[in-house]
Amino acid sequence: MAPQLDGYFAEVDKLSNHFIDRLAKAVAIPSISSDASRRPDVVRMGEFLAGELKKLGASVELRPLGKQPDKPELDLPPVILARYGSDKNKRTILVYGHYDVQPAEKSDGWATEPFELTVGEDGRMFGRGSTDDKGPVLGWLNAIEAHQKAGVDFPVNLLMCFEGMEEYGSEGLDELIEKEGKGYFADADAVCISDNYWLGTEKPCLTYGLRGCNYYSVEISGPGADLHSGVFGGTAQEPMTDLVRVLGSLVDTDGKIQIPGIYEQVAPVTEDEEKLYDPIAFTMETLHESLGSTTTIHDDKKHTLMGRWRFPSLSVHGVEGAFSAPGAKTVIPAKVIGKFSIRTVPDMEIEQTNEAVYSYVKEVFAKLKSKNTLKVYAQHTGKWWKASPHHWNFRAASKATERVWGVQPDFTREGGR
Amino acid sequence: MAPQLDGYFAEVDKLSNHFIDRLAKAVAIPSISSDASRRPDVVRMGEFLAGELKKLGASVELRPLGKQPDKPELDLPPVILARYGSDKNKRTILVYGHYDVQPAEKSDGWATEPFELTVGEDGRMFGRGSTDDKGPVLGWLNAIEAHQKAGVDFPVNLLMCFEGMEEYGSEGLDELIEKEGKGYFADADAVCISDNYWLGTEKPCLTYGLRGCNYYSVEISGPGADLHSGVFGGTAQEPMTDLVRVLGSLVDTDGKIQIPGIYEQVAPVTEDEEKLYDPIAFTMETLHESLGSTTTIHDDKKHTLMGRWRFPSLSVHGVEGAFSAPGAKTVIPAKVIGKFSIRTVPDMEIEQTNEAVYSYVKEVFAKLKSKNTLKVYAQHTGKWWKASPHHWNFRAASKATERVWGVQPDFTREGGR
Repeated sequence: MAPQLDGYFAEVDKLSNHFIDRLAKAVAIPSISSDASRRPDVVRMGEFLAGELKKLGASVELRPLGKQPDKPELDLPPVILARYGSDKNKRTILVYGHYDVQPAEKSDGWATEPFELTVGEDGRMFGRGSTDDKGPVLGWLNAIEAHQKAGVDFPVNLLMCFEGMEEYGSEGLDELIEKEGKGYFADADAVCISDNYWLGTEKPCLTYGLRGCNYYSVEISGPGADLHSGVFGGTAQEPMTDLVRVLGSLVDTDGKIQIPGIYEQVAPVTEDEEKLYDPIAFTMETLHESLGSTTTIHDDKKHTLMGRWRFPSLSVHGVEGAFSAPGAKTVIPAKVIGKFSIRTVPDMEIEQTNEAVYSYVKEVFAKLKSKNTLKVYAQHTGKWWKASPHHWNFRAASKATERVWGVQPDFTREGGR
Repeated sequence: MAPQLDGYFAEVDKLSNHFIDRLAKAVAIPSISSDASRRPDVVRMGEFLAGELKKLGASVELRPLGKQPDKPELDLPPVILARYGSDKNKRTILVYGHYDVQPAEKSDGWATEPFELTVGEDGRMFGRGSTDDKGPVLGWLNAIEAHQKAGVDFPVNLLMCFEGMEEYGSEGLDELIEKEGKGYFADADAVCISDNYWLGTEKPCLTYGLRGCNYYSVEISGPGADLHSGVFGGTAQEPMTDLVRVLGSLVDTDGKIQIPGIYEQVAPVTEDEEKLYDPIAFTMETLHESLGSTTTIHDDKKHTLMGRWRFPSLSVHGVEGAFSAPGAKTVIPAKVIGKFSIRTVPDMEIEQTNEAVYSYVKEVFAKLKSKNTLKVYAQHTGKWWKASPHHWNFRAASKATERVWGVQPDFTREGGR
């Protein structure tokens, strides 16, 4: 890696206590977005971040997002928009992160005070938000500061977007992005989401894809109200009987989707892509551990990772309207709604997938020759995302990771949010 | 009908105001068994009934049943055991009824005060318990009294068992019956349950059968805990995928049970039985109305009544452990329990039916070649009951009904409690 950066890295080491102090200040602010009573702390954390950015010479805006939809008396915390550098000859990177955190109490099982950054003997730091996501956000400020103090020119222009509601559904962010895509963010050449996780604990990774999700409801209704199976069993066609047969037709034991028109849309695996799986730090043992069982579809790493990342999957989540409590109830439910979703991958199209699902479900139901009524619809849909791991942004990230960690990062995707 | 009863019937007419007064006194006692604060009223009602029986010369016992299982601070109301007559030359009839009622408030939609017996212009009476079940219980007292006053010998010995917890699960009754089967009730020649309903509103009916119920759980488990379908979809075999396929194999759209070994146990329909269906006051329109739809399995009365009364039926009630709320949740449930039950009929045996269910469910699951774990078991079982409509007890009831109502009663069964 470029020797002109030696001074920069030396400066990072020199500044490390200062960086840890700044992280400690951030961790000490309990910016819990899901707790309305902590909203002033979330705002205080946003202002702290904005102040630090200003000290480094960034131009900063605190963008209000209006009221919180589910608590109309509550203001959403601002999104921090910042720009550092505007050299037309440099590339511009848009960085995303968040400054809010999940709740934490010592009594939850923490070994240390959650809102007090504690540095262990091995240098490992503990504190709520130190990794998700205050640490990564402050990392960008650290990079700017170390460049400045080392007298090394910052190689890119940075655009920053740091929100305060990530842990509570990123309320208000979509609208802002929609609006600023051709506004504040217009000259971004690439985006870096600084809020991901590693696959295991050994190797850093760079995420280049995420599956989408189409979530469906299959509603079957017949009688006007729930019935007693003693009185009506054997006289009425039962919606639940139809529903379990429809749900049972969707996918097989090994996860193979039975709906025609799904796999036809899936991009073939390329030789180039195949090579990415072998080096990945992941074992079936890790999977069995996180699964709590050995009930996997595949027996090897590559097919398992492909099953998670680059092939669609279908899960049946449950049934609304039927008896779901412990014990026994002899009800014939009048209306039942089966819920299932398909994780989507390149090059599946949302509409084409919906159509394939609708026509298959209708066809299966028609074959049942039931007098009940079927409705099938998408509750929500969200598209997959995939970048090229060979894009200059990933190549740069890979080189930087290798310099710091001494190891090539894994190129991973995610199975879905 | 026997002319020697003319004096008896004349006496009934003469006493009718007195009978209505007694019913009004009973209705005025809000003996709501499900409401702990009304327990003294339930006890008071039991004592009122015991007092009336004593006045008529019956020997009466108030049997305590101990504490209420779900409210151990509360005494169960007593069962009223009574005997009227012990002539060795007469048959002995055991009569069952209950003196408790369901809650009722004028604000529930009553046109009159629920705990105030109101006699309409057409002679129809309204008041909580007037039909379920204080009226039928007091009917026996009325019969005794009218015989006495008419100087007509009471034709049978009566054993009576009137409970005060019927509307709250008949707590404590099973144990008492078990104990007194060969004790207090030992010389009963026949039983008359005075707590049934008519099929419609036109004709009285005599019930000669009731389906049984075997209630099953199919439990399928795999992962150690619920999983996120984004992360694990496509890598783990999903219990819910297996379960909907198992549940989908049990019964078809028209209610035909797919489990071998069920219909083989069902007693064939006899010519004699077939004749019972035609006169029954029941129409498909009535069924459609109570169903709130026209989604019936059969299009004609006879097959519909047979489907309800004399053939087994299978209903899928729901799934425990899966997502059952409104909205969307991308969960892969780790353990799901499907619930279904079979209504059983003569000559099905509980154990033989259980075995048929267990082996079929295991066979279907084995074909799925799933790594998940299956358990199938009966939550509870209860046997069907069927009497002969030609038994002397039914013949006598039929003749009596015809004398009073001027119409032959329908011989009906019930689909199950």
